[in-house]
Amino acid sequence: MVNLELIKEIAQPSPTKIILLVIDGLGGLPDPHTGKTELETANTPNLDRLAAKGICGLADIVSRGITPGSAPGHLALFGYEPLSFSIGRGVLEVVGIDFSLELGDVAARGNFCTVDKAGLVTDRRAGRISTDKCSELCQLLDGMVIDSIKVLVRPVREHRFVAVFRGERLTSEVSDSDPQQTGLAPRVITALNTKARRMASIANKFMARAKGLLAGEHPANMVLLRGFSQRPQLPTMGEIYKLKPAAIAIYPMYRGLARLVGMKVLKAGTSIEDEFLTLKQNYATYDFFFLHIKGTDSAGEDGDFDRKVRVIEEVDRALSSLISIEPDVLVVTGDHSTPAILKGHSWHAVPVLLHSRWCRPDRVSEFSESACVYGGLGRFPAAQIMPLAMAHALKLTKFGA
Amino acid sequence: MVNLELIKEIAQPSPTKIILLVIDGLGGLPDPHTGKTELETANTPNLDRLAAKGICGLADIVSRGITPGSAPGHLALFGYEPLSFSIGRGVLEVVGIDFSLELGDVAARGNFCTVDKAGLVTDRRAGRISTDKCSELCQLLDGMVIDSIKVLVRPVREHRFVAVFRGERLTSEVSDSDPQQTGLAPRVITALNTKARRMASIANKFMARAKGLLAGEHPANMVLLRGFSQRPQLPTMGEIYKLKPAAIAIYPMYRGLARLVGMKVLKAGTSIEDEFLTLKQNYATYDFFFLHIKGTDSAGEDGDFDRKVRVIEEVDRALSSLISIEPDVLVVTGDHSTPAILKGHSWHAVPVLLHSRWCRPDRVSEFSESACVYGGLGRFPAAQIMPLAMAHALKLTKFGA
Repeated sequence: MVNLELIKEIAQPSPTKIILLVIDGLGGLPDPHTGKTELETANTPNLDRLAAKGICGLADIVSRGITPGSAPGHLALFGYEPLSFSIGRGVLEVVGIDFSLELGDVAARGNFCTVDKAGLVTDRRAGRISTDKCSELCQLLDGMVIDSIKVLVRPVREHRFVAVFRGERLTSEVSDSDPQQTGLAPRVITALNTKARRMASIANKFMARAKGLLAGEHPANMVLLRGFSQRPQLPTMGEIYKLKPAAIAIYPMYRGLARLVGMKVLKAGTSIEDEFLTLKQNYATYDFFFLHIKGTDSAGEDGDFDRKVRVIEEVDRALSSLISIEPDVLVVTGDHSTPAILKGHSWHAVPVLLHSRWCRPDRVSEFSESACVYGGLGRFPAAQIMPLAMAHALKLTKFGA
Repeated sequence: MVNLELIKEIAQPSPTKIILLVIDGLGGLPDPHTGKTELETANTPNLDRLAAKGICGLADIVSRGITPGSAPGHLALFGYEPLSFSIGRGVLEVVGIDFSLELGDVAARGNFCTVDKAGLVTDRRAGRISTDKCSELCQLLDGMVIDSIKVLVRPVREHRFVAVFRGERLTSEVSDSDPQQTGLAPRVITALNTKARRMASIANKFMARAKGLLAGEHPANMVLLRGFSQRPQLPTMGEIYKLKPAAIAIYPMYRGLARLVGMKVLKAGTSIEDEFLTLKQNYATYDFFFLHIKGTDSAGEDGDFDRKVRVIEEVDRALSSLISIEPDVLVVTGDHSTPAILKGHSWHAVPVLLHSRWCRPDRVSEFSESACVYGGLGRFPAAQIMPLAMAHALKLTKFGA
């Protein structure tokens, strides 16, 4: 398989522009009554017209049968083979709250929990305290300095928070303190290799101090940490593709993922319409736009087939404004499937549509899962979407003489 | 992916015969007025009949989105994964002039250039001197012996030539002398590792002597060298496939590529008709024929849609004579696409047709890019064409018990 080193060698800057429209969880499964998926049910004249003029296919994000999370899903769409690049859970949690992680930081996911007098965990989620309470407790813990390492503590949601350890020579190979069940004491954090001893010691000191600071609280009188990880050293999209990339996403997780690969994050507003407007307003300044639509995935996760249909229709209407600016390459796809009847991410292949002056049109005339089976792009790994987009934008030179 | 070691293990000689007809740059893009590609526009009753009786598909030479040069294109068609085997630029230039490179030779691409009195390059191409003048100057430089290494110098075209360093213990890891811009002196050639010091020293001595010999010339009063490389140690097609392979190609580049993989190069003549006649005349002597058609690629590169159509039609007519000898396996494909509207190689998948008594026919009844999308071979890497051809010729035994 083509690797990023090769793409880096043959990529060249050019004035052409690429738009990657990611409709999160786009792929679906048929409603048992109608036999049509969410995308097939939706009235999508713009997407169908683009499919008719463009080329379609089906992409596997990781591999057949594998259900991807949002991180591997987006890595694949950005061209990073998701089995070769991974993002630790702690980092992912931090990325999800718009916090700017520095190289070298060690991030951990935290839970406020309840312990009894003997120090045994009685509730791993401290009764799911409110997000407000969580914020208040985070302020209590934030800003400690332990052995010249600063610990930044930020709320996520309910009982969940993140702890970021900032300082020199930290590595993240340490075990979790979360015992994963009640009736046990929080585990001592241990180094998984000799270099990580200092991190383990600092993390244990943080746990001890947190216990002291939270002693008067109830039910959140202790913390648990897990998923210690560092920001992966991903080559940026600028380095690989020679692009000046921008991200437009309402949800922080996707802004965070875009930041990890070096995209400039634009102010997206709060609606699909806002997002498309942001793109138009910034069209002259960047040559690659990642535009993320969240509503489809949320509706799928909620099992709300009709709402997912409506969000797809809303995207289709908003597309008119994009089509009118005639981007050199427009790709529409999803980061995974989220069928409403499964109420969650799934392994089903995602439909892909690529529209460009230089595509070889196929016979597909509507954008749907069943039509994409017969698309000219065939069935392929999602990490090849970026090379395809780059090629159609005439941004890749010849490989070999 | 199946590698050559496996094929080598299961390949067995047999009396069956395989013809690989490579129509260079075969794949195209639609004429915006008719919506049909060059292949779809051409009247090709023979190819269509073969497609109807055979099995079709679409092949990616390197990977989706990657535009291959001729060398990776042909390596893939010969079954050599083009990302695993590469051919240096100097070697490729030598291969292109029918010069027989020996193992151990170091080849470099050369330019005659113009330098001013201070030794700075004023024209990297010496005003594109005529090929005749180039030949004359090459004779002046040819045959030097430097530290017991012989330097062979041969003209290519206009200001371009090749220098082949022949002798013992040479390695090619040295830098270029070409500064790639005017206003600079030719660079000193440096060793990229300690083993290459001798080569660097010899190449610098060659540069110095060339300067002396060309001092009275104008505008070609100096040379630049780049792309130092050695003949790759490719396992031959005889070794891998147990074939006795022959190549029929009018253009030297393709004869050279065939020689690198151990094919016997036959006298091809000067026309498509000549090439097909050569094949018929030698049919009894070999069991694999690589027949190369150049005109399609040249027409595509020139942006001449109609000429490309006419060359395809000429090939189709000539095919009658091949069909009449009933080869056990006939494969028709391209080494890449060269759409006339792009005036160059492109990344678009190439149509593949395989005809054999033992193929499982599909529903494709015409040989075209759009029909091949639905072919029974599906979409697959071009390096799998040879295993398919071998299998259909019953030249591969079972893998595993």
